[in-house]
Amino acid sequence: MMVQRIYLLLLLVHLPLFFFCGFPAILSLSDAEDPATKTMEDFSGYPIHEPHFPNSVSSMSVDIHSLQKQIDELSTFSDTPAPSVTRILYSEKDVLARRYVKNLMRLSGLSVREDFVGNIFGLWEGYEPELAPVSTGSHIDAIPYSGKYDGVVGVLGAIEAINVLKRFGFKPRRSLEVIMFTSEEPTRFGISCLGSRLLAGDEALVKSLDRTVDNQNVTFFHAARSADYANDQEELSSVFLKEGSYSAFVELHIEQGPILEEEGISIGIVTAIAAPASIKVDFEGNGGHAGAVLMPNRNDAGLAAAELALAVEKHALESGSIDTVGTVGILNLHPGAINSIPSKSHLEIDTRDIDEYRRNIVIEKIHQSALNISQKRGVKLLDFKIVNQDPPALSEKSIVKAMESASQELNLTHKKMISRAYHDSLFMARISPMGMIFIPCYKGYSHKPEEFASIEDITNGVKVLALTLAKLSLH
Amino acid sequence: MMVQRIYLLLLLVHLPLFFFCGFPAILSLSDAEDPATKTMEDFSGYPIHEPHFPNSVSSMSVDIHSLQKQIDELSTFSDTPAPSVTRILYSEKDVLARRYVKNLMRLSGLSVREDFVGNIFGLWEGYEPELAPVSTGSHIDAIPYSGKYDGVVGVLGAIEAINVLKRFGFKPRRSLEVIMFTSEEPTRFGISCLGSRLLAGDEALVKSLDRTVDNQNVTFFHAARSADYANDQEELSSVFLKEGSYSAFVELHIEQGPILEEEGISIGIVTAIAAPASIKVDFEGNGGHAGAVLMPNRNDAGLAAAELALAVEKHALESGSIDTVGTVGILNLHPGAINSIPSKSHLEIDTRDIDEYRRNIVIEKIHQSALNISQKRGVKLLDFKIVNQDPPALSEKSIVKAMESASQELNLTHKKMISRAYHDSLFMARISPMGMIFIPCYKGYSHKPEEFASIEDITNGVKVLALTLAKLSLH
Repeated sequence: MMVQRIYLLLLLVHLPLFFFCGFPAILSLSDAEDPATKTMEDFSGYPIHEPHFPNSVSSMSVDIHSLQKQIDELSTFSDTPAPSVTRILYSEKDVLARRYVKNLMRLSGLSVREDFVGNIFGLWEGYEPELAPVSTGSHIDAIPYSGKYDGVVGVLGAIEAINVLKRFGFKPRRSLEVIMFTSEEPTRFGISCLGSRLLAGDEALVKSLDRTVDNQNVTFFHAARSADYANDQEELSSVFLKEGSYSAFVELHIEQGPILEEEGISIGIVTAIAAPASIKVDFEGNGGHAGAVLMPNRNDAGLAAAELALAVEKHALESGSIDTVGTVGILNLHPGAINSIPSKSHLEIDTRDIDEYRRNIVIEKIHQSALNISQKRGVKLLDFKIVNQDPPALSEKSIVKAMESASQELNLTHKKMISRAYHDSLFMARISPMGMIFIPCYKGYSHKPEEFASIEDITNGVKVLALTLAKLSLH
Repeated sequence: MMVQRIYLLLLLVHLPLFFFCGFPAILSLSDAEDPATKTMEDFSGYPIHEPHFPNSVSSMSVDIHSLQKQIDELSTFSDTPAPSVTRILYSEKDVLARRYVKNLMRLSGLSVREDFVGNIFGLWEGYEPELAPVSTGSHIDAIPYSGKYDGVVGVLGAIEAINVLKRFGFKPRRSLEVIMFTSEEPTRFGISCLGSRLLAGDEALVKSLDRTVDNQNVTFFHAARSADYANDQEELSSVFLKEGSYSAFVELHIEQGPILEEEGISIGIVTAIAAPASIKVDFEGNGGHAGAVLMPNRNDAGLAAAELALAVEKHALESGSIDTVGTVGILNLHPGAINSIPSKSHLEIDTRDIDEYRRNIVIEKIHQSALNISQKRGVKLLDFKIVNQDPPALSEKSIVKAMESASQELNLTHKKMISRAYHDSLFMARISPMGMIFIPCYKGYSHKPEEFASIEDITNGVKVLALTLAKLSLH
């Protein structure tokens, strides 16, 4: 027992050294020169010139049971039965889930604040609070009938990473901040990463939200007010953050692809995030009675939509790159009766690529197909709206290095990879150096109830996140 | 004034004669032999050997303003804003509309009863009540975002036809009965002509209704109970009518096609009703994240549905006959999120033809396509269910003759035609001689808000219906 305590004390003392691994720039300073080392010595009461303890960081302890319990509890705030999860922006379940997250932040001793769109921040103040903080986080909203790990691992995992560092006795130099972003999923208003886009200062988005309604014709601001958030555009603009508000942002997330699991690798270090675009298309025809209107006299908006859906697949495949994807996730027919020819159809198309130019060619082809189909079928192309067409984001080299050395020090297999799914990191990259940590998930499944990540893989991710945050905090 | 009264009296007296025009069989009887003529003489107090009054029946008066007002009032019982009409089986608006119709029946002096599925009957007793009555009617339910004339003209028009005959001083020999059929549209439970199918004694339907739910998972019986109708299968079976319960059934309806309007003809005399079939199809794939799952690893249930929708069109066109139609009016994707690959899709297909054999070939081709698509895309074909596959129905010659001579006596242009849309008449034909009267409608539009029939055309239809009912009543 005594021995253990002494050992832990030594760990505590020598922690800063290990955190500096991977920061040669800082190591090149003499200990005296380095303010962090100085403070560590004051704090520990020991000079830090002892020999290296290679196993120290690997003894960082994650509270596996609490973390799993929290993931399971959070999944119960859902509008569809387990194992599926459905948590839509500003819904009752979303508001309850937010309260749950805020409570966890407070239990971890973080000072909690919320902005007007509902981004939630939990701050652990560093001993040099005037420096730009290091931030981490993800989202907890869930598309209809999806799973309980997407986003959630990066929020609950971030809070646990703070607990890990606190248990470890670590004191951050730069403050550490956990962020729960509002509505990473576009489900309700068709806009992805609503919270992080606004943090990044998207003024066009603020303007457009004034006219944005959900499929029940509820306006964005009505929905926001109902959850006690923004009343108007002015309040929404107050959400913007200046560039440099954070010295770094790191997001922990399940891969949502099969690579790590297939290759048996514990940690994915994301070097770039693919560039997503989303498009809304509306066709209109004359409709009519399914029995009475003869085939030659029809202009069926539903068949126009069916053709365009197949064209999206064709154009994505034509790109010649495995990295190009195109999906029609939403296809609605009006009036939607078996004996009525569809008079209107609405599609929502998602296409992405790690190569923005290549993806934009696909968008152009989809547009051309929509025009051709509308002409061929005598159906009006009422709308072809590119909702967003974001550029890809690159991870910051120094953060990639921090994540790599953290993985190494934890003796975890790791590889650099690309994120084909987009994340709040894509938008945080506009105002802060960014990096992402991936962990394996079952068969790469995501956005469905079968989505699963083992608690061991989650634990590895939390440790790498904790160590990376510590390194960046001292930087 | 006095003159008019005498003229009306003469009309009254001589009416029976004109009603007999078009019934050579009966005319061949001597007046003495014919019980109807005998009764007419007793009733009128005049021998009916006077000369013919060619204009008499043409002076039958329809209360145009009340009828238009009723059509407009009934259209306000809708779940969507005017000019669209949405009235779904057993919904609050459906129940209110039913009450409205029952009141109109009572105001016309009809004795009203309802059966356990909600078919509403309004009886005008004839002077030989032991004879099988002549019936007429249609439906008032409306698919989402449809119009206010489909069905309604055949219900409110039938009640007005009774008023016309009463104003005319006509006394029916056989009782006349107006029927408002429950749920001609398949909207809620996917079953068309629910009320008339049950009247025709469809036992398989009664059994299947025990397992039938709507898209909110409300069971049929739960919905029926909520509107105070059938509690169980036994009550539902009580709806069945014996063959021969009616001596004739005649339905007045808008054409729902462009032919009468284009050719400037007032009355369509239906000789046959096309044979409809409806099919439900469900595909299932693995779904997944629209960004993370690469194109070659997908089995997209939505694209399978899109391909099948286009195949339905192809197979209908391949039949080589203008009378073959195929429609996908319902296509739902699950989970229905822009960034999620559809893991499930549901289609509802309607295909019909006046040639049952030709239509069944189309159904077989659609099934084959569903199998091929599922194999090609690695998507499961969870279900391919032929919900109904009804034979066509032929109008009864004697009723066609009655409708023709009624049109002639009213000096209305008319033509024999086929009904491509199905109607309750299709099922009434199983238990009663059947006929249908069509009137023109704007551009043949139906099942959409633009659906329109002029009050003049409706009036013509009501007159032909009234005179036809009178003829059949005396037969």
